[in-house]
Amino acid sequence: MAISNIRYGEGVTKEIGMDLQNLGARRVCLMTDKNLSQLPPVTAVLNSLAKYGINFQMYDNVRVEPTDQSFLDAIKFAKKGEFDAYVAVGGGSVIDTCKAANLYASGPMSDFLDYVNAPIGKGKPVSVPLKPLIAVPTTAGTGSETTGVAIFDFKELKVKTGIASRAIKPTLGIIDPLHTLSMPERIVANSGFDVLCHALESYTALPYNMRSPCPSNPINRPAYQGSNPISDVWALHALRIVAKYLKRAIRNPEDREARAKMHLASAFAGIGFGNAGVHLCHGMSYPISGLVKIYKPKDYNVDHSLVPHGLSVVLTSPAVFAFTAQMHPERHLEAAEILGADIRTARIKDAGFILADTLRKFLFDLNVDDGLAAIGYSKADIPALVKGTLPQERVTKLSPRPQTEEDLSALFEASMKLY
Amino acid sequence: MAISNIRYGEGVTKEIGMDLQNLGARRVCLMTDKNLSQLPPVTAVLNSLAKYGINFQMYDNVRVEPTDQSFLDAIKFAKKGEFDAYVAVGGGSVIDTCKAANLYASGPMSDFLDYVNAPIGKGKPVSVPLKPLIAVPTTAGTGSETTGVAIFDFKELKVKTGIASRAIKPTLGIIDPLHTLSMPERIVANSGFDVLCHALESYTALPYNMRSPCPSNPINRPAYQGSNPISDVWALHALRIVAKYLKRAIRNPEDREARAKMHLASAFAGIGFGNAGVHLCHGMSYPISGLVKIYKPKDYNVDHSLVPHGLSVVLTSPAVFAFTAQMHPERHLEAAEILGADIRTARIKDAGFILADTLRKFLFDLNVDDGLAAIGYSKADIPALVKGTLPQERVTKLSPRPQTEEDLSALFEASMKLY
Ligand SMILES: NC(=O)c1ccc[n+]([C@@H]2O[C@H](COP(=O)([O-])OP(=O)(O)OC[C@H]3O[C@@H](n4cnc5c(N)ncnc54)[C@H](O)[C@@H]3O)[C@@H](O)[C@H]2O)c1
Ligand SMILES: NC(=O)c1ccc[n+]([C@@H]2O[C@H](COP(=O)([O-])OP(=O)(O)OC[C@H]3O[C@@H](n4cnc5c(N)ncnc54)[C@H](O)[C@@H]3O)[C@@H](O)[C@H]2O)c1
Ligand SMILES: [Fe+2]
Ligand SMILES: [Fe+2]
Repeated sequence: MAISNIRYGEGVTKEIGMDLQNLGARRVCLMTDKNLSQLPPVTAVLNSLAKYGINFQMYDNVRVEPTDQSFLDAIKFAKKGEFDAYVAVGGGSVIDTCKAANLYASGPMSDFLDYVNAPIGKGKPVSVPLKPLIAVPTTAGTGSETTGVAIFDFKELKVKTGIASRAIKPTLGIIDPLHTLSMPERIVANSGFDVLCHALESYTALPYNMRSPCPSNPINRPAYQGSNPISDVWALHALRIVAKYLKRAIRNPEDREARAKMHLASAFAGIGFGNAGVHLCHGMSYPISGLVKIYKPKDYNVDHSLVPHGLSVVLTSPAVFAFTAQMHPERHLEAAEILGADIRTARIKDAGFILADTLRKFLFDLNVDDGLAAIGYSKADIPALVKGTLPQERVTKLSPRPQTEEDLSALFEASMKLY
Repeated sequence: MAISNIRYGEGVTKEIGMDLQNLGARRVCLMTDKNLSQLPPVTAVLNSLAKYGINFQMYDNVRVEPTDQSFLDAIKFAKKGEFDAYVAVGGGSVIDTCKAANLYASGPMSDFLDYVNAPIGKGKPVSVPLKPLIAVPTTAGTGSETTGVAIFDFKELKVKTGIASRAIKPTLGIIDPLHTLSMPERIVANSGFDVLCHALESYTALPYNMRSPCPSNPINRPAYQGSNPISDVWALHALRIVAKYLKRAIRNPEDREARAKMHLASAFAGIGFGNAGVHLCHGMSYPISGLVKIYKPKDYNVDHSLVPHGLSVVLTSPAVFAFTAQMHPERHLEAAEILGADIRTARIKDAGFILADTLRKFLFDLNVDDGLAAIGYSKADIPALVKGTLPQERVTKLSPRPQTEEDLSALFEASMKLY
């Protein structure tokens, strides 16, 4: 497995101008979103670029929860700018958009579908060399600064999908926990749930030596390889941090320690799932986000409906882990214990229920909407949700327990109401 | 921090021919040592090269505990061969020699001292592009497959030193635990002690934010950055594996689980110390190895005197951690607990003694020679040992507690006898 470069510490953003000088960059593309363009993380980057005399153009038109259209807009900007380096300052939406811009601007003749995951796109391997990309995450969530993944909402199909290739992994992630201080409560919560699910899903993913087919030539193996002894270290470590610090980080914006720990946990979980993969919560989340009707989450300063990624992932987690537990009950029980369950008298066959209950309690304490019904879905939407999950086989096949369409229906149904 | 690519699993060596094909390699240099050239790890690699029709030349003249002379001999071979890829099959001695051969064959005009660590050499940054190097570790020790370090014994100065640059980090480490099964008892023990010390030293190294001077330009920062939240994860994880499996791996050559776990722990600890660094046990070990007189360790199939690296490192560990504990007593106590000490009633100010005692007991149980005296040193050698430690400032300055020459003398003296 390969792991990105990361630099961690309060204030390390001030070095970014020097990093770009060291890279010999002469035309830098700085990407962010409209909301962030007014906030301290972007200011810190701008100050450093100014100090080191870096020539750059700013693109602040990134869409929160990007779409194929918003990717294409950023790609157009990137092609025109002929940049020799990229800087992404933001959450997963910004970093993912910047990865796509860098990729398609580097191979200007590619058709957009070329690199999109099969079966939706062609899933071609990337052979063009990309420009360096420095990612400065401002949420504590996606870990996108450490992964070779870029996710977008394919409007036409009403389903989220992505591009996955080691080639788009950022050259450097600058993890500066100061940037997390400006996050409002729900953004901390939702991006934190993403970390939680990255850790839980990668720890319970199908083990790497049980995948089939396992391409015999290493070059053809997907980035997501199943759980393995190395990703396990990252997943467990991230899960322990989530258990200890996520509530504190959400409740108290002044709790620098908790926010800093979550910022690091996000990268740790990213390294873990970037190698092991995620499974059902993520696979099912893509239609939950893609089919959104009118939900407008609190604290998101945007003008369109959206189900924040972390929320779309965590709402099915009780049902999903109750379903998967029978394949690795010990791991599910261990996760429940890390998240605070008392498992001294627990029976191994109850592992799934125990983890599901622990998750429900965790979400209830954090004022999370009461299931898919609370964000606008009803039973009538289940067939569409299932249909949107089926093409996500890149991740769903990493579920430790195989699932039929009926299983998926039942999982969506069980996630309508949580408490 | 940057972390290498690794592939882990029983039998994964059989893919190496495919990896070389994927790299487009047409002239491969296969390096190993005389002893290993007759053993299963090399056979497994040869079989795969044959199967995929890889054209290669073999160099099996690596010296166990390499010297400047033995490095130069390998470099000469590499220059002459004009290789486009390297494969190193062996312990740290082989992997380090192969890194040096790749480096100097890539910049054929370099003087040997150019890249050797200052103040002994010139410590120049590497700017030439190297060829891919695939490392196949056969000991569970150095973690050299994950580090940008190559260590050798500088004969003229009678001191070990090295080359440290991210550029020489292997492209891929193939960690195939089957290779550990042929290791005789003392090689498992001594290379395991190296893992133990990598973990303990990197976990207790000066924290990354307390180093001074901290070069303001990131490009000038050394590979060894001090302990940090990421290296801590690796160090602790490796330490837990050592605590649980090292004794089993030493005592029972058939204990595949224990040997496999130690093989992975070696890479984990390598990733940890490759980023955080090591400190006094390693700094003091270099003259202990370099000044060797007539010690011939059991189980080493070589014709010259040597103090195996892991042994040279671990013999001072009780004295070193008793000395450093006052700077981070909690971490020293935590390490003692992981290694089996009962710390329920321990006082924090005794952390150093407790860890030292735990280590002594650990070594005694494993039949380790009773201190420096048992491997041929006496009080009269202490000034020379101290003198050989002074130029190791690259690591000694990472000690959490600064040390005078008198301190070093006292540490060597306290290490003459352990039990
Ligand atoms: N690439 C990957 O590996 C990966 C993994 C998981 C999710 N994702 C994708 O990432 C996207 C979600 O990213 P996200 O959860 O990081 O959020 P986001 O980037 O969508 O941002 C959410 C909102 O938070 C605001 N925000 C971000 N940082 C802030 C700060 N420090 N202070 C104040 N406001 C701030 C943004 O302006 C935005 O309005 C989704 O599209 C999801 O599918 C990608
Ligand atoms: N580069 C780094 O990061 C790093 C770190 C620590 C140590 N080192 C260096 O590495 C060297 C020590 O390496 P090491 O401890 O791995 O041992 P080694 O390479 O010196 O090998 C020791 C002996 O074990 C034999 N051997 C190795 N694998 C075997 C197997 N599977 N079966 C049977 N015999 C086997 C070898 O033939 C040799 O005789 C020292 O020079 C040390 O300074 C390097
Ligand atoms: Fe996610
Ligand atoms: Fe070592």
